[in-house]
Amino acid sequence: MAQVLQGFKVLDFTHVLAGPIATNYLCQQGADVIKVESGKGDTMRNYGGQTFADGMGPSFISVNAGKRSIVLDLKDEGHLEVARKLVKWADVVVENFRPGVMDRMGLGYAACRSINPSVVFCSVSGFGQSGPLKGNPAIDQIIQSMSGLMTLSGEPGSPPVRIGFPVVDTFTGLLGAFAMMSALLQRERTGQGQYIDVAMMDAAMVMMVSVAGPWLAGGVRPQKQGNLGYSKSPTADTFPTGDGDLTLGAVRQDQYEALCRVVQREDLITDARFADRYLRQQNAAALRAEIIRALATRSAVQWEQLLNDGGVAAGAVRDLPAALALPHLQTRRLTQPARIEGSQAQVLNTGFWLEHDPTGTDRPPPRLGEHTREVMAQLGYTPQEIDALCGLPAKAQPITH
Amino acid sequence: MAQVLQGFKVLDFTHVLAGPIATNYLCQQGADVIKVESGKGDTMRNYGGQTFADGMGPSFISVNAGKRSIVLDLKDEGHLEVARKLVKWADVVVENFRPGVMDRMGLGYAACRSINPSVVFCSVSGFGQSGPLKGNPAIDQIIQSMSGLMTLSGEPGSPPVRIGFPVVDTFTGLLGAFAMMSALLQRERTGQGQYIDVAMMDAAMVMMVSVAGPWLAGGVRPQKQGNLGYSKSPTADTFPTGDGDLTLGAVRQDQYEALCRVVQREDLITDARFADRYLRQQNAAALRAEIIRALATRSAVQWEQLLNDGGVAAGAVRDLPAALALPHLQTRRLTQPARIEGSQAQVLNTGFWLEHDPTGTDRPPPRLGEHTREVMAQLGYTPQEIDALCGLPAKAQPITH
Repeated sequence: MAQVLQGFKVLDFTHVLAGPIATNYLCQQGADVIKVESGKGDTMRNYGGQTFADGMGPSFISVNAGKRSIVLDLKDEGHLEVARKLVKWADVVVENFRPGVMDRMGLGYAACRSINPSVVFCSVSGFGQSGPLKGNPAIDQIIQSMSGLMTLSGEPGSPPVRIGFPVVDTFTGLLGAFAMMSALLQRERTGQGQYIDVAMMDAAMVMMVSVAGPWLAGGVRPQKQGNLGYSKSPTADTFPTGDGDLTLGAVRQDQYEALCRVVQREDLITDARFADRYLRQQNAAALRAEIIRALATRSAVQWEQLLNDGGVAAGAVRDLPAALALPHLQTRRLTQPARIEGSQAQVLNTGFWLEHDPTGTDRPPPRLGEHTREVMAQLGYTPQEIDALCGLPAKAQPITH
Repeated sequence: MAQVLQGFKVLDFTHVLAGPIATNYLCQQGADVIKVESGKGDTMRNYGGQTFADGMGPSFISVNAGKRSIVLDLKDEGHLEVARKLVKWADVVVENFRPGVMDRMGLGYAACRSINPSVVFCSVSGFGQSGPLKGNPAIDQIIQSMSGLMTLSGEPGSPPVRIGFPVVDTFTGLLGAFAMMSALLQRERTGQGQYIDVAMMDAAMVMMVSVAGPWLAGGVRPQKQGNLGYSKSPTADTFPTGDGDLTLGAVRQDQYEALCRVVQREDLITDARFADRYLRQQNAAALRAEIIRALATRSAVQWEQLLNDGGVAAGAVRDLPAALALPHLQTRRLTQPARIEGSQAQVLNTGFWLEHDPTGTDRPPPRLGEHTREVMAQLGYTPQEIDALCGLPAKAQPITH
């Protein structure tokens, strides 16, 4: 069976992170995504403090495989006309400029709808298209700061700490993809397109539903609790072992008893200080010391295996490269080749598995403007017109002395 | 226009977090979600160390508004028959038991498809339906530990730190909702249902695409860098002020200069130590000290306003209740009443805005089994049959002496 979005066309005016992540989900489900870039290209092409001569930096590769790239100068009327033809071609238009920018270029929702009445138009922004902060510049760490996200992790009383990667961008991208998929289902049933407003600040709140929800529903104030789980059971926490750290998830009485058996400390089951969950919480420090002593005899990875075999949820603390190398994940088809010639680069897949619709793409990430001529030709421009639009040779400067 | 999923029917065997979050997104777009619970109810009804007499704890309210609840004992043949009738009724069946449990109850995908050939069946689990770890117990903090997530936040060299809320559950829930929406679009076009496998471990990797991607694409090893942004610019970091902490996002030269002007330290623009981004990185500690001195004259919230007015991305570090109280968010229709009688409880909305399809629900979260009789009646059971199924009075124990 074809991929879910086979035959769907996405015109993608997004750059950097949340927007390209959103269209990455659509692309990996088979949509034809045309990425519109300026002559400088998406700044993600050269990101992370390094400069990549060919504009194919690892961060760019990660979320752009399978898209086509067209370079347009949206201040040039001829190029703007190309953009308008692409709006007519598209099922979905996505952009993540600041509110108002697309309107000023003549490519806002109203203009696009007049060109293509059933278009789905999605704006991704920091603070959304409405409200007093809509014009504010936003990057992930600003949203992490303003949303409360920086006050949730770490030990009680510790200073604010950023989640060490742009998780708000990531979540916003997926939320945008979900919203677009919703609108496409709606359009499939009614023939009607619509406008979608996705904002990083809103998305951050929804991402924090497990703490924002209880606050809104019952006034439960979020509290930092280090690595202790939500249950506050002292055996659902992270511990040093003989080699590396280990997180345990022993919450119920039977899980606690299983833990004691696996670490060969059955005496702790009947120890009067730890006889039930209330006592264990009261005597948490003493219990923690006993557990650390017991875990010192083996490595975290060894304990992970032994404890899971014994029915206790346990996971060694790994870094990301070690996690990605787990044999388990190798069986999950989580990655695929980026198909860049002469490179071993891999990209992540969508992360879920559909029985009938393999996700992923068999095309590499695009070089800057790689598909400019191809796309223009597809729109009906002649080779001469394309030369003129691309500045060859019509716009070449005459040599004067 | 009707909500996107108006008329769609979801049979929801999920509990605790990732699963109920997934069906919450569907419910808030208009799907009729029937939540199947055991007589004890979803453990989220009494969560967070507290016990709520009525089983309507804040964590439960947060992600279950608008669903209907039916209590079934799936070990009882009569109740299992009710479940099978519901499978026939449903467009989507969702479950988050350990792999194999639904099969053993006779409600696995093969069984459901034989009852309802075009059903979309989604399994949400810790490690997925395949691979050597599929049987392992998983909770959010174990996945955070094993996936690399605990090694990304905090200062370089600091110990592993959990993201202080179950972010993997949240992301997995949204990913599951997106996968189900994709399958529903596919079904709308082809008439064919399918099986979906969503796993927390896979989802964690996709959530970390901004660090996992560059590692896979170019061998870029993730590194902790405290609150410093990805640009590593010393003026994209978090600073103390006269009152509270403030995150700045001044990366480009023009942003740095604007920052210096707003904090009335134009001398820092021409200061030889800070003349360009390379020098600023070299002399980061000295620059940080200057910035902290300049920011000491006002509060973080005041600076936030002044800096944004001056074109510099800046956000005061707020806790979550303060963030939710921002006037901006009040205008974004981010929350809605939970509609629980005698309560001011609010719930979050989906977090994105569709022009034609208001998201949200006008129904409260369900009491345990609140809709058992209603749903059974809808399936065609007579009042007598319902009494018998509910143990009234057919299953009432005769009083014997």
